[in-house]
Amino acid sequence: MSSLAKVMSKFRLAVVQLQVSSVKADNLSRVRRLVKEAAGGGGQVVLLPECFNSPYGTSFFPSYAEKIPGESTQVLSEAAKENKVYLVGGSIPEEDGGKLYNSCTVFGPDGEMILKHRKIHLFDIDVPGKIRFQESETLSPGDSLSMFETPFCKVGVGICYDIRFAELAQIYSRKGCQLLVYPGAFNMTTGPAHWELLQRGRALDNQVYVATASPARDESASYVAWENKKVIIGGIDVTVYLQYLSDIRQQIPITAQRRDDLYAVTSTQEGSG
Amino acid sequence: MSSLAKVMSKFRLAVVQLQVSSVKADNLSRVRRLVKEAAGGGGQVVLLPECFNSPYGTSFFPSYAEKIPGESTQVLSEAAKENKVYLVGGSIPEEDGGKLYNSCTVFGPDGEMILKHRKIHLFDIDVPGKIRFQESETLSPGDSLSMFETPFCKVGVGICYDIRFAELAQIYSRKGCQLLVYPGAFNMTTGPAHWELLQRGRALDNQVYVATASPARDESASYVAWENKKVIIGGIDVTVYLQYLSDIRQQIPITAQRRDDLYAVTSTQEGSG
Repeated sequence: MSSLAKVMSKFRLAVVQLQVSSVKADNLSRVRRLVKEAAGGGGQVVLLPECFNSPYGTSFFPSYAEKIPGESTQVLSEAAKENKVYLVGGSIPEEDGGKLYNSCTVFGPDGEMILKHRKIHLFDIDVPGKIRFQESETLSPGDSLSMFETPFCKVGVGICYDIRFAELAQIYSRKGCQLLVYPGAFNMTTGPAHWELLQRGRALDNQVYVATASPARDESASYVAWENKKVIIGGIDVTVYLQYLSDIRQQIPITAQRRDDLYAVTSTQEGSG
Repeated sequence: MSSLAKVMSKFRLAVVQLQVSSVKADNLSRVRRLVKEAAGGGGQVVLLPECFNSPYGTSFFPSYAEKIPGESTQVLSEAAKENKVYLVGGSIPEEDGGKLYNSCTVFGPDGEMILKHRKIHLFDIDVPGKIRFQESETLSPGDSLSMFETPFCKVGVGICYDIRFAELAQIYSRKGCQLLVYPGAFNMTTGPAHWELLQRGRALDNQVYVATASPARDESASYVAWENKKVIIGGIDVTVYLQYLSDIRQQIPITAQRRDDLYAVTSTQEGSG
């Protein structure tokens, strides 16, 4: 498909925010059902939240971790194929070579895995009296940027804390991504403080669409995810108008106006895409 | 002064948003009075808006333009010295070698000019039915990044549209600036849409303070400046707590967590500072 044809198109994106329990099988069957619902509602690209098959917490990651491919990604593959959607499979704890990663897999409408993104920036923060979390206690970071092509547009992938690092979004957009997706699980401290601002900032600065998905808020969980849409179980459907991006980029042409003679944002290692 | 001592300190920043008329002498006397007021209120660094001595518009720039040093910067120098403040002198149309620039000068408490920043990114936008403005019809862009030292912290300078380009703020913060100042004159279209978001985004992404100043809104002007503080003539005093920045950078240590092995933001030309 030509670049022009892509720019003329629009597509439906479905964001699925689901309850994540401690029973993996329940989480997987919930995903299967909700992806079907999202596709039935017209979703062509479906986005799941971070850590959708396991409670979020360093103590849970080792016991919920799987190889990729494995049980959970098999469900994602089948759900993508059965519903003929691009499925951005949130993330799961991945085990590989004795190390654990926080990994997002993406499947095409044929059920093939087209991308695996391992969270690059581990969530290690310590806000006294509010929240301390150290993913690095059990997880290792990924080492690649991650983009994939669809018939609609090119998509860049990050996981949660990755969104805080503007460079990732800058490089994705320079490489032609028009949609950035960040499965996330922000918390009750940094969520209300920063989650929306980060998304809006990435979109404005790069003139791209930005979508995020969070687990539903569960006040009884050890880690309470903050999601500002208050969708408990279900989806948010949005239409992504690529022509609108094109218009905006003409009206306020910051992409063309960048001073490449004065500064540069560069990828120092080529990732996938 | 040692870096530690700087981090322990705090200081008062005064943002002066003033009415800008077509009578240059009135604008200058207003500046003189308001800088004095700001200093009297405890301001140690005083920030003026973009184009404070001239109506904002490409048709005005040639006739209001001055050499630097010249009449307007002489007033700034004297105001800084008389009130013993660091004065970020908004901007004025500057004439140099037959070219016009949108230039910000900064004066120290001894009245010496310590920096001149020529707007790097010219404001050329065209939002049909809303606003079309082409600074490049009469202005030339600057070619340098601009930072200056104070006893409180290092400060990075941009002018208005410069704020849309994340790289500038990223480089300033990497070079140690803890405060970024952007004299501006956003308008009634892009102001409500983006002005606050841009400021908050730059602050969040770089963990720095960001301050902006706008001319007061004048609905009778040919270009109506949007400023969301609704200060007509007067100032906003804020205390800049540098220890708070230090705390935040420890709690959410994105500066240390950047993946320099994967990406880089670089200045491809060394500016002042």
